[in-house]
Amino acid sequence: MRAVAPYVPGEQPDPARRVIKLNTNENPYPPSPHVLDAIMRAADAGIRLYPDPEARALRERAAAVYGVPAAGILVGNGSDELLALLVRALVDPGDRVAYPVPTYSLYDTLVAVQGAEPVHVPFPEDFSLPPALADARARLTIVCNPNSPSGTLISTGRIQELARAVRGVLVVDEAYVDFARENAMGLVGRVANVIVLRTLSKSFSLAGMRVGLAFGDPELIAGLRTVKDSYNVGRLAQVTAEAALRDLPAMRANVERICRTRARLVSGLTALGFAVPPSEANFVLARRPGVDLGPLARALAGREILVRHFGALPDALRITVGTDEEIETLLAALRDLTGS
Amino acid sequence: MRAVAPYVPGEQPDPARRVIKLNTNENPYPPSPHVLDAIMRAADAGIRLYPDPEARALRERAAAVYGVPAAGILVGNGSDELLALLVRALVDPGDRVAYPVPTYSLYDTLVAVQGAEPVHVPFPEDFSLPPALADARARLTIVCNPNSPSGTLISTGRIQELARAVRGVLVVDEAYVDFARENAMGLVGRVANVIVLRTLSKSFSLAGMRVGLAFGDPELIAGLRTVKDSYNVGRLAQVTAEAALRDLPAMRANVERICRTRARLVSGLTALGFAVPPSEANFVLARRPGVDLGPLARALAGREILVRHFGALPDALRITVGTDEEIETLLAALRDLTGS
Repeated sequence: MRAVAPYVPGEQPDPARRVIKLNTNENPYPPSPHVLDAIMRAADAGIRLYPDPEARALRERAAAVYGVPAAGILVGNGSDELLALLVRALVDPGDRVAYPVPTYSLYDTLVAVQGAEPVHVPFPEDFSLPPALADARARLTIVCNPNSPSGTLISTGRIQELARAVRGVLVVDEAYVDFARENAMGLVGRVANVIVLRTLSKSFSLAGMRVGLAFGDPELIAGLRTVKDSYNVGRLAQVTAEAALRDLPAMRANVERICRTRARLVSGLTALGFAVPPSEANFVLARRPGVDLGPLARALAGREILVRHFGALPDALRITVGTDEEIETLLAALRDLTGS
Repeated sequence: MRAVAPYVPGEQPDPARRVIKLNTNENPYPPSPHVLDAIMRAADAGIRLYPDPEARALRERAAAVYGVPAAGILVGNGSDELLALLVRALVDPGDRVAYPVPTYSLYDTLVAVQGAEPVHVPFPEDFSLPPALADARARLTIVCNPNSPSGTLISTGRIQELARAVRGVLVVDEAYVDFARENAMGLVGRVANVIVLRTLSKSFSLAGMRVGLAFGDPELIAGLRTVKDSYNVGRLAQVTAEAALRDLPAMRANVERICRTRARLVSGLTALGFAVPPSEANFVLARRPGVDLGPLARALAGREILVRHFGALPDALRITVGTDEEIETLLAALRDLTGS
């Protein structure tokens, strides 16, 4: 336990503080109003009862939306819990778990907790799929796609090739994929060793409710189910997610607004001299190769603008796409601080 | 993964079915009205944001209620998640985990998932503390107190002696302790290897919201925190639990009603010839030594009354204390079915 470096989430400021929060990739827009209605309807004496351990209604809704049978779907307490379940269920101590880096640092934490061996395969400069990943002889291979913190996307064709090349299970962590031009859901049911993870936290504006979905081969999903806590997703979380999946137009409208703002953010950052890899997520990576941007992140925080700076990637800032107004404020602050 | 027998929760019937549900130890009464108000207030656009990973407001509230510093409190997605965290954080594959049996069967599942060795120490006939438990040389010892499915309580004095006698950590799973005459919370902070677990699912009528609390030595709690998912408890769950801990009189009034009904249930069952160990929980164990009560459980289910029958304890039924009306209906059905 002492040997494990915990995953460190982005700062969650005191709610009373008026900050521009561009550090944890939350959606700046509220969820569908039907979602809030569903909570109001479900918040009754029924919360004295345990939730459905199988989340049947939600899984059937997800099956209809994503075209994967309900038996191939598992609901988690956020996709973080699903990642933890996958590592616990499929990886023994000493096994190899491979992923391209830099990426979501929770993978390192989960692998360390399990006593497994992390195999870090560096992304090339353009964040394309590193060929060595297929040869890592890993029990489990994880690709965050679009990747955090780069925002870049690996094409579904390359993901499919990778799935056929690896020995074990390939997890495609698609937390941000609703902001991208394609996704790997079509591989589920066709390529038996692929698990696709989704979350309601980003595109559906429900980070506070903790709902993730795993899609895969029904036999593999059934195995994961035996390892999960029986009542891992509460009643209101299930109801909320089901309502969200009934109003895809609301989600898509938010995604379109965010993608338009993303384009403005990329233009603004590029004009300021930052290098920005092409983003297909609700955040972008702003780089000044060779320059430590820690001081810049702290200067922004001093102006109540929170962005993410990673020790492992000192010459970059990860910036969540907020509202147009928030992004204008950020760009003005950057112009000021960088003397551009 | 294939080798693990999953924990099997009690049946959660279709909500449209009108059943008397006495099988999963839920509270028959609703939570404090302030709890539902708190959900209504929190169900706003703020659910787009991640919850506080540290659950600070809830932990401070729990600190005030239970007299344990917030640094010695960890919030879980139900106490099931806290049990899973404890096993993962403190137990290596091959380590021994000891508990008296029969007890909550999730312990077996968690130990198997971890690849550890379960040490089952049988309770004596009267469900008092088995002396052999102290000599089990276990890394982790768990006592469910009051115990499920027996409902019996081991005195705090005996728990304290056990804590001093065992080598590793002693977890006292007090899910049902609000229905009992004493509890072990006073040991926290005085005996460094004791962890006390509580849940909001039973006495606080919040099984649907999934909130559990672990209390212990701050250093031990800090270690557990490094292993948990960052955002393991959602925003509404945190808000709900905090509101529940602000209205202890509502909880206590429900507990008192349940304890009065429990006395009626025990009298009725005893009059029907069942042996009933003294219960300090919101359920009782009704036994007919040597008689398989599976057929009786199924006959009750045929009358839309669900109770719990365990394969490992065939001559017993575990019956949740429902409302007076539910218990009268159950007793009438038992009179009828047993020809008494």
